[in-house]
Amino acid sequence: MTTRKLRVGVAGLGRMGKRHAINFHELTARADVVAASTPDESERVWAAENLKGVQIYADYDEMLEKTDLEAVVVASITAVHAEQTLKAITKGLHVLCEKPLSIDVEVAQSVVSAYEESLKTYPQQKVVCGFSRRFDASYREAYERITKDEFGSPVLFRSQTADLYDTSGFFVEYAKTSGGIFVDCSIHDIDLMLWFLGEDRKLKSLQAVGVAAVHPALEASHDRDNAIATVEFEGGKIAALYCSRMMAAGQEDTTEIICSKGSVRVNMQVRKNHVEIHDSLGARRELPQHYYERFREAFITEAYEFTACCLDNTSPPISLQSSVKAVGIGQALQRSLISGEKVFFDERATKN
Amino acid sequence: MTTRKLRVGVAGLGRMGKRHAINFHELTARADVVAASTPDESERVWAAENLKGVQIYADYDEMLEKTDLEAVVVASITAVHAEQTLKAITKGLHVLCEKPLSIDVEVAQSVVSAYEESLKTYPQQKVVCGFSRRFDASYREAYERITKDEFGSPVLFRSQTADLYDTSGFFVEYAKTSGGIFVDCSIHDIDLMLWFLGEDRKLKSLQAVGVAAVHPALEASHDRDNAIATVEFEGGKIAALYCSRMMAAGQEDTTEIICSKGSVRVNMQVRKNHVEIHDSLGARRELPQHYYERFREAFITEAYEFTACCLDNTSPPISLQSSVKAVGIGQALQRSLISGEKVFFDERATKN
Amino acid sequence: MTTRKLRVGVAGLGRMGKRHAINFHELTARADVVAASTPDESERVWAAENLKGVQIYADYDEMLEKTDLEAVVVASITAVHAEQTLKAITKGLHVLCEKPLSIDVEVAQSVVSAYEESLKTYPQQKVVCGFSRRFDASYREAYERITKDEFGSPVLFRSQTADLYDTSGFFVEYAKTSGGIFVDCSIHDIDLMLWFLGEDRKLKSLQAVGVAAVHPALEASHDRDNAIATVEFEGGKIAALYCSRMMAAGQEDTTEIICSKGSVRVNMQVRKNHVEIHDSLGARRELPQHYYERFREAFITEAYEFTACCLDNTSPPISLQSSVKAVGIGQALQRSLISGEKVFFDERATKN
Amino acid sequence: MTTRKLRVGVAGLGRMGKRHAINFHELTARADVVAASTPDESERVWAAENLKGVQIYADYDEMLEKTDLEAVVVASITAVHAEQTLKAITKGLHVLCEKPLSIDVEVAQSVVSAYEESLKTYPQQKVVCGFSRRFDASYREAYERITKDEFGSPVLFRSQTADLYDTSGFFVEYAKTSGGIFVDCSIHDIDLMLWFLGEDRKLKSLQAVGVAAVHPALEASHDRDNAIATVEFEGGKIAALYCSRMMAAGQEDTTEIICSKGSVRVNMQVRKNHVEIHDSLGARRELPQHYYERFREAFITEAYEFTACCLDNTSPPISLQSSVKAVGIGQALQRSLISGEKVFFDERATKN
Repeated sequence: MTTRKLRVGVAGLGRMGKRHAINFHELTARADVVAASTPDESERVWAAENLKGVQIYADYDEMLEKTDLEAVVVASITAVHAEQTLKAITKGLHVLCEKPLSIDVEVAQSVVSAYEESLKTYPQQKVVCGFSRRFDASYREAYERITKDEFGSPVLFRSQTADLYDTSGFFVEYAKTSGGIFVDCSIHDIDLMLWFLGEDRKLKSLQAVGVAAVHPALEASHDRDNAIATVEFEGGKIAALYCSRMMAAGQEDTTEIICSKGSVRVNMQVRKNHVEIHDSLGARRELPQHYYERFREAFITEAYEFTACCLDNTSPPISLQSSVKAVGIGQALQRSLISGEKVFFDERATKN
Repeated sequence: MTTRKLRVGVAGLGRMGKRHAINFHELTARADVVAASTPDESERVWAAENLKGVQIYADYDEMLEKTDLEAVVVASITAVHAEQTLKAITKGLHVLCEKPLSIDVEVAQSVVSAYEESLKTYPQQKVVCGFSRRFDASYREAYERITKDEFGSPVLFRSQTADLYDTSGFFVEYAKTSGGIFVDCSIHDIDLMLWFLGEDRKLKSLQAVGVAAVHPALEASHDRDNAIATVEFEGGKIAALYCSRMMAAGQEDTTEIICSKGSVRVNMQVRKNHVEIHDSLGARRELPQHYYERFREAFITEAYEFTACCLDNTSPPISLQSSVKAVGIGQALQRSLISGEKVFFDERATKN
Repeated sequence: MTTRKLRVGVAGLGRMGKRHAINFHELTARADVVAASTPDESERVWAAENLKGVQIYADYDEMLEKTDLEAVVVASITAVHAEQTLKAITKGLHVLCEKPLSIDVEVAQSVVSAYEESLKTYPQQKVVCGFSRRFDASYREAYERITKDEFGSPVLFRSQTADLYDTSGFFVEYAKTSGGIFVDCSIHDIDLMLWFLGEDRKLKSLQAVGVAAVHPALEASHDRDNAIATVEFEGGKIAALYCSRMMAAGQEDTTEIICSKGSVRVNMQVRKNHVEIHDSLGARRELPQHYYERFREAFITEAYEFTACCLDNTSPPISLQSSVKAVGIGQALQRSLISGEKVFFDERATKN
Repeated sequence: MTTRKLRVGVAGLGRMGKRHAINFHELTARADVVAASTPDESERVWAAENLKGVQIYADYDEMLEKTDLEAVVVASITAVHAEQTLKAITKGLHVLCEKPLSIDVEVAQSVVSAYEESLKTYPQQKVVCGFSRRFDASYREAYERITKDEFGSPVLFRSQTADLYDTSGFFVEYAKTSGGIFVDCSIHDIDLMLWFLGEDRKLKSLQAVGVAAVHPALEASHDRDNAIATVEFEGGKIAALYCSRMMAAGQEDTTEIICSKGSVRVNMQVRKNHVEIHDSLGARRELPQHYYERFREAFITEAYEFTACCLDNTSPPISLQSSVKAVGIGQALQRSLISGEKVFFDERATKN
């Protein structure tokens, strides 16, 4: 193990950017956050107070130019993920990019192409899309036990991303650029689906239906606040997805992998912590209110492992190509959600 | 309340017929089982020992002719459900028929037509299809609380019937006449879906995919052992169904009704009883091994309430028309499962 | 199996008497309730409406004298349990007596003596104290698995009877004659303790402390509303008991048997049914509100099995002597609760 | 917030010492581990590899003398806790000492006296005994909600420390110097009991019984492997404790605080992570295998908050006097466990 610390720059200091900056800066022993950039002045004020000794920039390009970085964490708005990642790739920097690379699969694929090209010059360069659930201890245990064939072959993958109902109207505004609920929320489930069922497995069909139940204004952005989908793969694998922005109790991200001889479930008994209350309302527990409350540990592990991959030149746990495939599936599901059409990837003639 | 006892005949003494006979005979104070019929000799031997004082027939028609019955419980093989129900209707008898009325929606509809005609002559006649979950205390509490608008409007209905993996090969043989997994298993979920989302609600679309994962021979009967479906209704209601014959731990029949301000779940923590074991394998509980272990109480309530409806001339809790609609949806899902096609019930032009 | 029905008389038609009467009358195929007695006129009115064909008496002695009974269910107030049981014993009748036989161990023992004497004349006579938990499916599974040595030797028995807080003041009045919380509530746990650790096992010590937290008036009756106890047996077995009349959410009767290689828990996740609610309060379930809501099935089984023992001359599942021992332990715990003294049953010299 | 980092020395690099060293060194942004001491050579080898830039000493006194420390973390064997803490106090250093300060209440009290004396010279000095559960998010939520009077007044505190059965024989050896199971294991529950019921609350009585069920050799050291206790306080508060070294499934540390209008439970559904398995054994989850697997987060918070107290001169969340009181109660319980005698702290004459 080297004692050298990875010199990291953080792009974007919004909600997730702040968390990444703190995680790399304070909780990742082998990393130093040396710079951060954000066009938002209030975020720069926050940085001046909370990121001691870190050089703060208003401009991403300037940060890349003026700082001696080895790695960049891209936590900006989704619209610039691909562009900022590409610029860092060009400079030979390692990149951890927040999901998704892009809401457009072709743009996302262009990042992969650039990375593959760049590897010829910088063979040790790492570019990772930060699908945080891949770093969660429970998902990892599920994956390892299934991979060791404890429960036979996976048949049905069922997963959901279900957010607490936000009455602020944020989602309606956000939906205009988010790529839609399947690209924004379900992307995590899609990534897990590929992980558990096989990243190279060929799609046969997919289909989605949904409603705008509590945010009717989403219709105008061709989006929905509740949607369900089925996905069919070659080799006898199927998947059922659910995404929602309407949960009353909290964040309910649950996954089941039903195999031929048993099944593994992650987070089916959603709970915030170890507390249970018994009172006149019965027996109750509280739920995480948002994504980070459930996955904070996974993000810290992500920072730790990304750093280790860069310093030790080991393989990251997620392939960039798989991240692009996830975007493609998300886009196709979103299209099906709006058009109502089932999408087939195989020859229709093979139906019996 | 009358002290008169309802004179009941039971048609069929297979697994469910035996249970119905005992429930009506021993656990329903207001009913007397006076006759039972079965073409199976071993079942008649069982009846001679276990149904004391009950007249046993080999032939259903003979039972109807020779016994002074007020009501018939049809628990024969599915293939004769409709025919036996029709004969009893013609004689003005009350009928409790095991689900489904028929695996064919047109045959099922013919029973409804006959019943409607018969009501002109026997206005107090009751004909009920025995969807046992409608008599389950937990489903009823869920229904009542949602109906009282505790959680806002239902948006997503999600439900599954998942049977213990039967390695005896029974299902493969059974599938040849069962109507398929959506008609045989999911019919309960479909009935609940109609109950919770509205029996008169119009369908927009449905679609199913599945695999024959552990019973590959099912393919030959155009059936599957795992299938998932989406159903779309008018008025912003959607449903996700799962059916399986591959569960490793036991019967896992679970239902969620996700409403705009909360959700109700039934049986999400599946368990056989109140026992939990902690040993070197961790903390564990056992599951019901079959349908009856989960729903025995509901069947007893069903016998009790059907009897009360007949004696007191009150309305049964399930409309016969809804039971026929459930068969129609089951058939359509099964066709979609095999063809791979999404089925639309509305004008395609309305898609946005 | 005989088709003969056991001719049962029910003494007392209060809350539990009504339930026993209905259970034997309507849900026990092999029993006929032919008579019932109660000094309470409103209970006799209830009986006239709900126990069709049953002869109703105001006087217990008259019922015994004028009816041709084979068995009596004693469900009167505790103060007359022993007396009514003794009278029935004298007449050679089978008896199912509600717990406890008496709040005084000597009185309870006198019932055993009378029964033992009576057996010389009526060798098939059955006298059973109705500890309903012994008929509960979960407790039975726990007992069978431990008896089969699945988890090694039992070391710690931990159990509680915890009632919903009753703000009506009933308990304060009731406590004046109940024998105290350990005789009234914990008697069930004590019975289970003897069952699981060995009915013949010798006591070494016991000790209790408690408070009158929400019913301070209990102090005047030398009673408490919350109490904890430890009990020590020969052979390396210990027990911890908790009893309460202060539960906010419902009835919480839980039991753990911790053995050398594993443990069995009964009802640790207390719940009324299969419903779970997720709303702005979190995820919650309701609890049984009283004893019968948890143990209704056990009482029906009790009626069924008591009837079978009488008709088939088989052994009842609870020894009367053990029921008396339970009363003795309950009394000793209650004395310790009030005096604060630890009670030793062995030679003090054996302490190391 | 200051950017200055607290200069920390770690005494002892055994199991807990290593964890503290890493937590302070890598996960506590405001602390620098500048030195560590251990008489164990293999631990020094570990330190050379894992604590880069940290000065390693074989001798504690030498570390104190030669290093410019502000704070010491005492994680040595219990036998030297008090001595090392006293030496650091004398030098005006802040101290975080692993529990217990001593297995002897008088020695523990001498540390408090020395600290009180030292405060005259070093008024900002912090000395904290590391009861990690006080830093656990679930215990804190329980404490806050009770303190806000959400559930009325606490009446019964029930808590247990139950370790996985260790078949290596370690405990038998360890018991010779551990102070006994109530001082070693239950000290955490005792500390929580004082926290939840009131650190200044006067004791009325206590009593314990136990067995050496799986480690019979413990008898020779006057110890047991399973023990239960009752504790009685002035003001109508009672407590029930259980400690065990015999758990088959893992670490089961659970706590219930039963109040007059509701109750709070911590960790009653013990689980290692979010995974649940359904297979032929039923539905199961795994448990933490040891203390640190359950409380790792709490230890990191402890390091973070201890550091903040020292740098910002704020009050630590645990009073040293309470930690000493916990030792006294643990010793008294252990004596009662072995003698069999109940211990009274009040006037016996007050018994009614």
